[in-house]
Amino acid sequence: MTDRPTRERLVTDEVVASFADTPSPRLREVLQSLVRHLHGFAREVRLTESDWEQGIEFLTRAGHLTTDKRQEFILLSDVLGLSMLTVAINAAEDDRATEATVFGPFFVDGAPEVPLGGDIAHGAKGEPCYVDGVIRSTSGDSVPGARIDVWEADSDGFYDVQYEGDRSAGRGWLRSGAAGEYRFWSVLPSSYPIPHDGPVGDLLRAAERSPMRPAHLHFRVTAPGYRTLVTHIFVAGDPHLKDDAVFGVKDSLIVEATRYPAGTAPDGTGRDRPYYRMHFDIVLAPQEHRP
Amino acid sequence: MTDRPTRERLVTDEVVASFADTPSPRLREVLQSLVRHLHGFAREVRLTESDWEQGIEFLTRAGHLTTDKRQEFILLSDVLGLSMLTVAINAAEDDRATEATVFGPFFVDGAPEVPLGGDIAHGAKGEPCYVDGVIRSTSGDSVPGARIDVWEADSDGFYDVQYEGDRSAGRGWLRSGAAGEYRFWSVLPSSYPIPHDGPVGDLLRAAERSPMRPAHLHFRVTAPGYRTLVTHIFVAGDPHLKDDAVFGVKDSLIVEATRYPAGTAPDGTGRDRPYYRMHFDIVLAPQEHRP
Repeated sequence: MTDRPTRERLVTDEVVASFADTPSPRLREVLQSLVRHLHGFAREVRLTESDWEQGIEFLTRAGHLTTDKRQEFILLSDVLGLSMLTVAINAAEDDRATEATVFGPFFVDGAPEVPLGGDIAHGAKGEPCYVDGVIRSTSGDSVPGARIDVWEADSDGFYDVQYEGDRSAGRGWLRSGAAGEYRFWSVLPSSYPIPHDGPVGDLLRAAERSPMRPAHLHFRVTAPGYRTLVTHIFVAGDPHLKDDAVFGVKDSLIVEATRYPAGTAPDGTGRDRPYYRMHFDIVLAPQEHRP
Repeated sequence: MTDRPTRERLVTDEVVASFADTPSPRLREVLQSLVRHLHGFAREVRLTESDWEQGIEFLTRAGHLTTDKRQEFILLSDVLGLSMLTVAINAAEDDRATEATVFGPFFVDGAPEVPLGGDIAHGAKGEPCYVDGVIRSTSGDSVPGARIDVWEADSDGFYDVQYEGDRSAGRGWLRSGAAGEYRFWSVLPSSYPIPHDGPVGDLLRAAERSPMRPAHLHFRVTAPGYRTLVTHIFVAGDPHLKDDAVFGVKDSLIVEATRYPAGTAPDGTGRDRPYYRMHFDIVLAPQEHRP
C-alpha cells in the first residue's frame, strides 16, 4: 500500500487532471492553481474534519448574511489581505500614479450626481469638509471630464446603507472641470469598525484583531484612456492608521484635514460654522493594453 | 521604490503578522497557513480584479443557494477534491479498516430508526435491495450495537430532500445485532448528477467536467471506542465509477449488486418481485487518542 503522503498527493493530482480539458486556458490555469494551493494548505495544517466543518459553516453563515447591502465575502477577502494583495498585483507600473487601495463592501450603484462644487453629504451626520484637487495624467496633462465617485461613513462611523431604509447620504459623483479640477463638499469621515456582528467579526475576535478602520473617504476615478483608480484618502492623525483591519493604508494617501473657522471657504461660499478642508491631487496612469 | 514581488510579499507578511496574537495555537496555525496559500495562489495566477469579482460573485451565489437542504459549499469542496483530501488526511492508520469516502451534502439529522432487517426505503422509488454484512474491529472482534446511518438517492437519482415537501425516504438508521451483524432493505441506488443548477454546476460546465456520481449507498457507522466511519458502497459495473464528480470511488468500496428472482430472501421473507442483494462487511478502526 502506498504511504500517506503519496495517497494525499494522488488526490491532488487527480483533481488537477480533472480540469485539464477546461476550454478557457485562463480558467484552467486559475482552477488548477487554486486546487494545488488549497490542497497544499489542507495538507500543511493536517486539516481535520472538524476544521472542515467549521469552514463550511463559516462560509454558510457569510452567505446568509450577504445581501445587496452587506457583503461578508468582500469583508472576508479584506481581512485576509486578499483584496490588498489583488490591488498590489494589479497596481500601475508607473509609480507617479496615485496609489490604489481596497474597494471595500460599501460602494453602491445609483448614487446621485452632484455638480462640480456640490455637496455629497445629503444629510449625512458630521462636520462639513471641503475636498478639492486636480486630476492629471502621469505625463502631467490635466484630465477634464473624469468621473469621480466618492463615498464615506458619517461621524457615527456608518455608511448610509448600514441604516434602515433607502436613504442615500455621504455618496455621490461629479465630473472634473476643464482644467482637471474637482471640488465637493462632504462631511469629515470618521474611523469605524467594519461590520463585526457576523462570521468575519467572530474571526477577528478569535484572533484578537481590531475591527477598526482609520477615517477615510473612498474615491473611484474613471476617465477614457486611463486606468480606473480605486483609492481612499485617509485623515492624517487618525489613531488607527497603523492597524487598519483591511491593510489599506499607504503613506501617500494620508492627507491633512485642516480645520477652518466660519467664514468664506476656498470656493467663495460663506460658511456659518467651522469646516475642514482636505486637498488631494490625483494622478491617473494610462490604460494598459495587455496582450 | 521596492520592486513589485517585494511589495506583494510585504502585503502577505503584514497579514500573517496580524494573526500572530491569536490565542489558540491551532487557529493561529490554520489562519496563517491559509493566508500564505491563498496569497500564493493569487500571486501565481496574477489574480485580476475581474477574477476577484468573479470569485466574490461565485461565493455570494453559493451562499444564497445554500439552505438546510441544499449545501453548495459542500458541493464546491467536493468538486475541488478538498473533501476527499480531508478524508485522506484523516484516514485510519490501520489499512485493515474499511476505507472512508466523502460525507456529501445530503445527510440530514432526524432520519427514522428502523429495526434490524427493517426497510429504510419508506416509499423511495426503485427496485428492492437487501444489504447485509458484519461489523468487526481491526482485531477481528464483532461490534454489536453500532449505529449505522444509511442514505441514498432513489431510482430517479434524487434524495428525498431534493423533492418538495418534508418526506423522509431512502434514509434511516439501525443498530448492529449481538454478533455485529446488520441487515436492512432499501432500494438499489442509482447514478445521478450532483445538483448542477447553481454556481458549482456552472463551474463543472465551464471545465467540461461531468456532474455524474456513480450509484452508491452512504454509510455512517458509529460505535463507542471506534473511529466513526463515513463511507459509501458503490454498485459494481456503474458507468461512472471512473469519473466520479467528487473523486469518491475506491476499489475496496465497489460491491456487486446481485439480482435474485422473486422468492425467499436471505432474511427468510417472501418477495413477490425480483430484488437485489449487496453484501458488505465493515471493519472499524479503534478510536485514536491524539496528543
